[in-house]
Amino acid sequence: MSTDIARIRREVCDLHAELVRYQLVVWTAGNVSARVPGEDLLVIKPSGVSYDDLTPANMIVCDLDGKVVQGDLSPSSDTAAHAYVYRNMPEVGGVVHTHSTYASAWAARGEAVPCVLTAMADEFGGEIPVGPFALIGDDSIGRGIVETLAGSRSPAVLMRNHGVFTVGGSAKAAVKAAVMTEDVARTVHLARAHGRPQPIGEQDIASLYDRYQNVYGQSSDRSAAEGDAHR
Amino acid sequence: MSTDIARIRREVCDLHAELVRYQLVVWTAGNVSARVPGEDLLVIKPSGVSYDDLTPANMIVCDLDGKVVQGDLSPSSDTAAHAYVYRNMPEVGGVVHTHSTYASAWAARGEAVPCVLTAMADEFGGEIPVGPFALIGDDSIGRGIVETLAGSRSPAVLMRNHGVFTVGGSAKAAVKAAVMTEDVARTVHLARAHGRPQPIGEQDIASLYDRYQNVYGQSSDRSAAEGDAHR
Amino acid sequence: MSTDIARIRREVCDLHAELVRYQLVVWTAGNVSARVPGEDLLVIKPSGVSYDDLTPANMIVCDLDGKVVQGDLSPSSDTAAHAYVYRNMPEVGGVVHTHSTYASAWAARGEAVPCVLTAMADEFGGEIPVGPFALIGDDSIGRGIVETLAGSRSPAVLMRNHGVFTVGGSAKAAVKAAVMTEDVARTVHLARAHGRPQPIGEQDIASLYDRYQNVYGQSSDRSAAEGDAHR
Amino acid sequence: MSTDIARIRREVCDLHAELVRYQLVVWTAGNVSARVPGEDLLVIKPSGVSYDDLTPANMIVCDLDGKVVQGDLSPSSDTAAHAYVYRNMPEVGGVVHTHSTYASAWAARGEAVPCVLTAMADEFGGEIPVGPFALIGDDSIGRGIVETLAGSRSPAVLMRNHGVFTVGGSAKAAVKAAVMTEDVARTVHLARAHGRPQPIGEQDIASLYDRYQNVYGQSSDRSAAEGDAHR
Repeated sequence: MSTDIARIRREVCDLHAELVRYQLVVWTAGNVSARVPGEDLLVIKPSGVSYDDLTPANMIVCDLDGKVVQGDLSPSSDTAAHAYVYRNMPEVGGVVHTHSTYASAWAARGEAVPCVLTAMADEFGGEIPVGPFALIGDDSIGRGIVETLAGSRSPAVLMRNHGVFTVGGSAKAAVKAAVMTEDVARTVHLARAHGRPQPIGEQDIASLYDRYQNVYGQSSDRSAAEGDAHR
Repeated sequence: MSTDIARIRREVCDLHAELVRYQLVVWTAGNVSARVPGEDLLVIKPSGVSYDDLTPANMIVCDLDGKVVQGDLSPSSDTAAHAYVYRNMPEVGGVVHTHSTYASAWAARGEAVPCVLTAMADEFGGEIPVGPFALIGDDSIGRGIVETLAGSRSPAVLMRNHGVFTVGGSAKAAVKAAVMTEDVARTVHLARAHGRPQPIGEQDIASLYDRYQNVYGQSSDRSAAEGDAHR
Repeated sequence: MSTDIARIRREVCDLHAELVRYQLVVWTAGNVSARVPGEDLLVIKPSGVSYDDLTPANMIVCDLDGKVVQGDLSPSSDTAAHAYVYRNMPEVGGVVHTHSTYASAWAARGEAVPCVLTAMADEFGGEIPVGPFALIGDDSIGRGIVETLAGSRSPAVLMRNHGVFTVGGSAKAAVKAAVMTEDVARTVHLARAHGRPQPIGEQDIASLYDRYQNVYGQSSDRSAAEGDAHR
Repeated sequence: MSTDIARIRREVCDLHAELVRYQLVVWTAGNVSARVPGEDLLVIKPSGVSYDDLTPANMIVCDLDGKVVQGDLSPSSDTAAHAYVYRNMPEVGGVVHTHSTYASAWAARGEAVPCVLTAMADEFGGEIPVGPFALIGDDSIGRGIVETLAGSRSPAVLMRNHGVFTVGGSAKAAVKAAVMTEDVARTVHLARAHGRPQPIGEQDIASLYDRYQNVYGQSSDRSAAEGDAHR
């Protein structure tokens, strides 16, 4: 077990650099977590700590109720939401939360991002749905995420007036979903500025989604990612 | 005292790099200052000097009337505004000024940024208010900042046709407020492009603000930041 | 031959860094290929591999039917489209594919970018045209690219609901076209936000295009690029 | 003389990095020149050479008719326009040309940027004016720049359907003007998206301009910049 945790501490730490690189976060407002395989544990960012100061050693290990098991610092204030997702979606190995700009603009209007790009069909299999307005402090956010994703192929949900949560078979897959969410939210936002984006037919979306989930990339990566049931 | 000043020269110098990193400033147009604890002194950027050329040694020490006490260069042309804030807001330990793009766009229209994001409720406790149009050269800008902030929980004010001033218990907190101001000004600008962002209820705003100010981050940071009365 | 392939493996690998530098791609969504001169071969990015992990050695060599000739990984899932272009446009030495943001926004509406900038007249000789909606998996995308470019001076085509394909006499010229496509797609998008961009007359466009293709840059580069028939 | 030229070769070379840093240029589309003091000479970028490959040694020295005096490469294709400005504006020591995005969007509509920001009053002393549509190849562009600037305090002109030219007492001052042009063009573009920016009164603009030109920065810089007659 401790080898797994050491590896996951490093992975979760390193993946935060991708949130910075793709400009999905400012200051300390965004976080990545990963499930520890075979354990009822997750590894997550400490609260309010600058991305520059993250190390594998200061990542926090929590149980799936969000209680700290290892770590001197307080865990992310979003830990309860991450933990709820792991408790209720056994196929999920990683969760990401951001307030990325364009996606949060859709969230502020409470509007789903329509599927008008083949890249959306590939990654999301349709629109990116909107979840409820929920206050931090109990299970409301986690429940909103899980219930919204249950009705969708999308690994991302726009939480109303708040921001983005994404899931994946691994933390890396959840980070990729967060990157793609902002990318397509931006493109579709811009497309709409000067007219009506053309919709893609349901059958074409299904065909693109199916191909991308099963043929894209290297087959070794796809078998490594088996269990990415939600996607 | 001189130890404190040496530490604050470095802190103020280093924090300018955050303005650059978050693209809140171009050329030399933005500045950070900090109060010297227990002294009627402030440390501020020299005027018209490139961010690349800032060093702890070329920061300027002024009294709270803006008169230079230590330093060979002229202080920021905004020193009078910073000094006015320190004279009239004893709880303020740091002040930041930028012309960051989206926030200045709201300022050019003279329009407050409405609170439609949980991140705004957290950091600003409501809308980001607009201060008066004021010319540089006397106390008008400082007075406009102080009077506007007096009626608000927000650590940021949009000065009409001008740009942003933020305050904090420390210079770092004021820089954080400047970063968050641009971030939410951008997101709400975009949200409005395609419809009406959903407002957040007053009670929900108060609850989010209260939690964020008292629970977010590490408790050691929160006690270090005691005296952040404005926030 | 193997010297040529070694050189082209490095060139194709390095040019992907330009896609990243100009922010035309996120994650793994974009690719560059080059024809091997005098051979019925192309060199292309492996599928789903991060730009950070590209090396000359992991580039894939394919024949012009898209079948792998050298390489342990799967080639880009867009290889069939690249190969179709090389089979049908003998003057083309390089092909680039991106989902760059502003260009993809025009593509989502199925709208050509009108020629309202001298830089567009220089590089594209007119508007940037729109190609058909086409699913991945057969020759549809390649055929859509070739048929659309046949009716235009432009080295770029906006594939409907998808993204950008560009061609050039060399892979570097195709990358330049991809960079310029996003640059002008963005400027014209913005120009239209507050009114009607002024059109440039057909004769002025022709005169600018002719001069740029024949006088701009260093004459040694122009002779090196002879055979850039499409441009 | 050769000491001056060596210094100016380095200065012109280095200032191109500022165009890149502030994202005012892509690929090779933008250039800086400087007058050689006391000589009828200018130093300018070679045509079509990547910013990464610029060195003091490959800068081109031309006379004020644009004829190459020193240098193995062809000079920028905009050299005739730069030369025209130096011949006709003896107070100008530096010229910059870019296609920066937001400024070029105003230029595509042929619309001046109105003065609604104190930073515009400071740097431009009013609106940023629009010059005529002009083809490359003779003195049309240079004449358009000079005639437009003659009626304005602004060191920048938006050439219709083309881009930005700026002037300054030094090449660095012209680069600063190019940076500020894009910055305010972007802010005012955004301000207008959601309503009408408030105008600033003529007297306030004059007062801000006068103060900024005479009080901002370090007095040593201001005396070094004497002869910046246009500003």
